[in-house]
Amino acid sequence: MPSAQYIQCANRHFLMDCGEGTQLQLRKYGIKFQRIDHIFISHLHGDHFFGLFGLLSTLHLLGRVKPLTLFAPAALKGILDSILKAGNGSFAYEIVFVQLEGKEGQILLEDEKVKVSCFPLVHKITTFGFTFTQKQKELSLNFEQTRADNVPRAYYARLKQGHDVVDDNGKLYRTEKYTVPADPELVYAYCSDTEYTESIIPYILDADVLYHEATFIEELSERAKQTKHSTAREAAMIAKSAKVGFLIMGHLSARYDDGKKHIEEAKIVFPNVSVAEDGMTFNVPFLKSLK
Amino acid sequence: MPSAQYIQCANRHFLMDCGEGTQLQLRKYGIKFQRIDHIFISHLHGDHFFGLFGLLSTLHLLGRVKPLTLFAPAALKGILDSILKAGNGSFAYEIVFVQLEGKEGQILLEDEKVKVSCFPLVHKITTFGFTFTQKQKELSLNFEQTRADNVPRAYYARLKQGHDVVDDNGKLYRTEKYTVPADPELVYAYCSDTEYTESIIPYILDADVLYHEATFIEELSERAKQTKHSTAREAAMIAKSAKVGFLIMGHLSARYDDGKKHIEEAKIVFPNVSVAEDGMTFNVPFLKSLK
Repeated sequence: MPSAQYIQCANRHFLMDCGEGTQLQLRKYGIKFQRIDHIFISHLHGDHFFGLFGLLSTLHLLGRVKPLTLFAPAALKGILDSILKAGNGSFAYEIVFVQLEGKEGQILLEDEKVKVSCFPLVHKITTFGFTFTQKQKELSLNFEQTRADNVPRAYYARLKQGHDVVDDNGKLYRTEKYTVPADPELVYAYCSDTEYTESIIPYILDADVLYHEATFIEELSERAKQTKHSTAREAAMIAKSAKVGFLIMGHLSARYDDGKKHIEEAKIVFPNVSVAEDGMTFNVPFLKSLK
Repeated sequence: MPSAQYIQCANRHFLMDCGEGTQLQLRKYGIKFQRIDHIFISHLHGDHFFGLFGLLSTLHLLGRVKPLTLFAPAALKGILDSILKAGNGSFAYEIVFVQLEGKEGQILLEDEKVKVSCFPLVHKITTFGFTFTQKQKELSLNFEQTRADNVPRAYYARLKQGHDVVDDNGKLYRTEKYTVPADPELVYAYCSDTEYTESIIPYILDADVLYHEATFIEELSERAKQTKHSTAREAAMIAKSAKVGFLIMGHLSARYDDGKKHIEEAKIVFPNVSVAEDGMTFNVPFLKSLK
């Protein structure tokens, strides 16, 4: 089953992996895919990127001019170039290619609202996991209260930064009283494909939601080892060790008709767990609230 | 709309072009795609080959070991090799790559039952059309009649080859009397993508069924010229000049909800015409019978 996830995060629109047929699925679920400005490819096995060339072509045919940033292992650049050359074509928009590499985690993009990082997984070829962080928003002022108490405007900035303020007469203005709690930070981690490896735990520690592959269940643990994939139990063990809020398992082998056995097996280790199916939407703040 | 056609011809199973999602469509329509031993790619625009890598991978994953022959423009070989290299993989079956080239028609494969040829079309990049010929079968003996008249066995072969035989006593054995008519030769021609060009007529002359692209209708004939595509009227003119039996139009621009206007326009020039839609099956002997 080809992999692709569309991720909305603080008004950013990301595509994570792009298996064959992704553009058809995006259309089917009514996603305006011209909004996507960043595509991340975890590794160069076909089920994670064979839909990319079609999607990029369609974006061009639909008139895209704004640049698109593509984060992927280096070899994708050559493949993409050779496909464009064979078709004697080029796109009307720029593709900014960012090569993923290295044995350490790295920040791929960051602004005041969002941070995306990658880190190495352990699979048959170079493969990366990702975390998508929606940063904690700044505190908002409680205007009713600041007006009622005539709080000087000069103090607003410090109060919003979470500091108490004392004026020249020794009067105390507490940030708690004059601000409204901000939405907390949200972290979504994506790990596919990988064998069981505790090396990823520091990167995904305390994530609100973890997507972790679970190609097999324990009765095929040998096959999991050989093919460098994980079992449902192993995904749950990672979720538990990393103290995440909720685990979504995916990338199930086609031999399983559904994810029932995966969930049964995982629940023994980690109770907050589900299985991703085509077209499902997961709401990270909601899943966080279940913790 | 991605292009792909599955062609059955004298127990051979061919795939003609392989746009994104072809393997899903083959599955949807219940086609046993391990039977396909020959794939033909007309040209290297994405809508004609972006589904190839996924299909080839799936054939491997499903355990294919018998070789597959791929007829395509040269650059596809490099693309395929770089994709396999990036995934650090290879297939358990051999892909025999046959490079399409040349300004003349050429026979790609031929045995006693089938012949497949290609010839140049005129498009933005090097593009080929194809003809699939199911050869006329040998005449069958009418055993009731040969026994009734005691026709010597020694004459069977010549009678089946369509010759009359005279014995030493001057007795005449007519092939018509002692044989059953054979199924006639059937020719299917595939032409996509191409601008209007009479250069293809010698290659598709008298074909029973012609598939010809008709991306536009005449009101967009300028756009057709610019993009080196054809209009419905032009497809019909080719069908008429080439004296084919039946015309199937396809590759319609996504701006058209259906093929009604295409059929209206084509019928003025050539009456036996239809428009291909996803999942349609065309029976060449039946269409031939309509002539």
